[in-house]
Amino acid sequence: MISDLDREMEARKLESIIVTGSSTMGNPELAYVVGTQLARGGIYVKSLGKDPTLITSSLDLGSAKKGRVRTIKTYSDYGYEILFKKYDRNEARVQLYRKIIREEGLRGPMSLIGTNEVSYYFQLVEDLRRSKLKMIGQNYPTVLDSVRETKDKREVEMLMETSRKTCSVIEQTVEFLRSTKTKGGRLVYKSKPLTVGTVKKVIGRLLGESGLTAPEGTIFAPGRKSSDPHYSGDEQDIVRVAEPIVFDIFPQAENGYWSDITRTYCVGTPSRKLQQMYDAVLETQLDALDRIKEGGSGKDVMNHACDVLESHGYLTYRDLTRGNKKASTEGFTHSLGHGMGLTIGERPVLSLAADDELKPGAIVTVEPGLYYPRFGGVRIEDDLLVGSPSKNLTNLEKEFVI
Amino acid sequence: MISDLDREMEARKLESIIVTGSSTMGNPELAYVVGTQLARGGIYVKSLGKDPTLITSSLDLGSAKKGRVRTIKTYSDYGYEILFKKYDRNEARVQLYRKIIREEGLRGPMSLIGTNEVSYYFQLVEDLRRSKLKMIGQNYPTVLDSVRETKDKREVEMLMETSRKTCSVIEQTVEFLRSTKTKGGRLVYKSKPLTVGTVKKVIGRLLGESGLTAPEGTIFAPGRKSSDPHYSGDEQDIVRVAEPIVFDIFPQAENGYWSDITRTYCVGTPSRKLQQMYDAVLETQLDALDRIKEGGSGKDVMNHACDVLESHGYLTYRDLTRGNKKASTEGFTHSLGHGMGLTIGERPVLSLAADDELKPGAIVTVEPGLYYPRFGGVRIEDDLLVGSPSKNLTNLEKEFVI
Repeated sequence: MISDLDREMEARKLESIIVTGSSTMGNPELAYVVGTQLARGGIYVKSLGKDPTLITSSLDLGSAKKGRVRTIKTYSDYGYEILFKKYDRNEARVQLYRKIIREEGLRGPMSLIGTNEVSYYFQLVEDLRRSKLKMIGQNYPTVLDSVRETKDKREVEMLMETSRKTCSVIEQTVEFLRSTKTKGGRLVYKSKPLTVGTVKKVIGRLLGESGLTAPEGTIFAPGRKSSDPHYSGDEQDIVRVAEPIVFDIFPQAENGYWSDITRTYCVGTPSRKLQQMYDAVLETQLDALDRIKEGGSGKDVMNHACDVLESHGYLTYRDLTRGNKKASTEGFTHSLGHGMGLTIGERPVLSLAADDELKPGAIVTVEPGLYYPRFGGVRIEDDLLVGSPSKNLTNLEKEFVI
Repeated sequence: MISDLDREMEARKLESIIVTGSSTMGNPELAYVVGTQLARGGIYVKSLGKDPTLITSSLDLGSAKKGRVRTIKTYSDYGYEILFKKYDRNEARVQLYRKIIREEGLRGPMSLIGTNEVSYYFQLVEDLRRSKLKMIGQNYPTVLDSVRETKDKREVEMLMETSRKTCSVIEQTVEFLRSTKTKGGRLVYKSKPLTVGTVKKVIGRLLGESGLTAPEGTIFAPGRKSSDPHYSGDEQDIVRVAEPIVFDIFPQAENGYWSDITRTYCVGTPSRKLQQMYDAVLETQLDALDRIKEGGSGKDVMNHACDVLESHGYLTYRDLTRGNKKASTEGFTHSLGHGMGLTIGERPVLSLAADDELKPGAIVTVEPGLYYPRFGGVRIEDDLLVGSPSKNLTNLEKEFVI
């Protein structure tokens, strides 16, 4: 969490950092250090052991005050207007940063941080280096990757709010599915076979009403195609009875925090094979939810999820690492989960490849799945706050047959 | 457009470019060169005068084939799995890029491009430099800023489709406003004063149903507060009769292309002052739409918009540049427009500060406005395809009184 920033800077021998960008939207690093959304972005500067300063547009001062930085200045305080009259756009930018670095007493080694166009910011780094400033890059995990790995109380509250809204969207979508009729093995809505296009319109409306957006889409994959964990469902796909429907929804709230929840449903009676897959995935997930505690290891819980699924005779990702290529498309073909917050892909990961420690305050998805080409898939996913005990943020029933 | 890429590389003495990122979402540079959306991103490499190669995950091969790159390879083709077994994550990344650079025969000067976390990619650039590769940054406009400035037929079609959907959302929102009653100077919905929160729920639902998202929000600013061009409207704000309502909507379609449209409405009879403001803004906008043609200059049309508004006695941004500070919050306080495509802030800009040529195929917003603190604002915005004649992509009536 943000209180770890000095420690993580010190561990990387960073004397100072600049976190920057023209908006906090799509810039999780800037959104994080600022602690609120700024339409025009800003420049956050911090020296090791000192309080940060945020420099922003005067138009964003009101928004900036809702964030976590106490010292807020404007570009005008650094003579921005004069610089942009005197120099061209590129040189004015360099001069502005130089002035900020000088007046805020920032020293190297320094990193420039934030999600921005890299060739344009690389040019800025090169230009700042001309004044003998030591600018360094960051290997993974970067200083903010590590700081953002655990969430503070306010972040957890925002994540819980997104989760509540997302659960409500899922519940209402299920209600909609229940409201349809069935005929000849198909779901029927308004006298026509129900398509994924129609369901996605319903989901879109519900998300919109909840103030959520789904910039990376929504997975609503019925039938055989759900055997590809990343298949999101085509508009024309038809929803049938007795088939698995993988419904994986990952929306973002206005405050920037995400939710990531999956349920698998079956309208009508599933086949024995499908029911067994569901039961095995549910058992694996409940076991993992129970097993994930602070101090544990992401690799261990992934290994244990593989144990459970293998004990039921399913292939897992572990088989793939042992050279069984069949396990790349069949069985439990992916990792158990990943960290989540201002992105839906951050530390820690619950996988065989990494060995991330499960720290208190981390938020992880727990999402075992089973996939069989030409048959279909099952996945169940909750979001968990790591602690002792851990806390499930996803307050949503695990129904299968609807 | 993409056919300008070699010319723009040559102008910057670039022997090769690498455009990269872990997703095309939120990465307009990668989305652009790939020509479609890739959930897991990719590495696009191109040497001057040669066809590009796209390297992507085998899971994204199907999506990649929908894009514009003909030579598509996978990470496995470069021994990705072996590298990630042999080295840690950071070194494996460097080795993968080195292998790609070597096997694709890429030479320096080279730029690494794309919207990504800059400190992490700066580290990659530093590591690649260790093998004597000349890596350079890009000043504004970067090579892709310039290439993306003009749109090809396929892009224009996608922009027109987003525009059609957005116009429909606006029309349906206006229908909703018309369906409300008025009482004591307020709009009334379900026996309660109509709030911006309720209107935004309606807009959210309509966007969701249309498959559009609004990751940067929507401006629905009624009354005095509309005098701040960036005020987006608070949930609790009440919608009143005879006041201006600035409705500025900028959604993005799944294909990544945006729309950006503003209308100002007034429920009931506007005051004389408000009607005059509206008339002046509309006159300015129609004049600008007429005046913007290929070969023109962004600065000229901005100057002419100021002429029109000043002839009606209003302050403009030009007054601000002449030292009249009142013009920072009163009158026409911003620029006339900006380029649009995979972002809603790109070249060319129609402003006094820049002098961008209006090239055929550019898409620009044309959005004059007038703002008076403690009174309110008026803004009208269409999206225009520059040509001779130019073509208005915004097929939506300009009503004021509803």
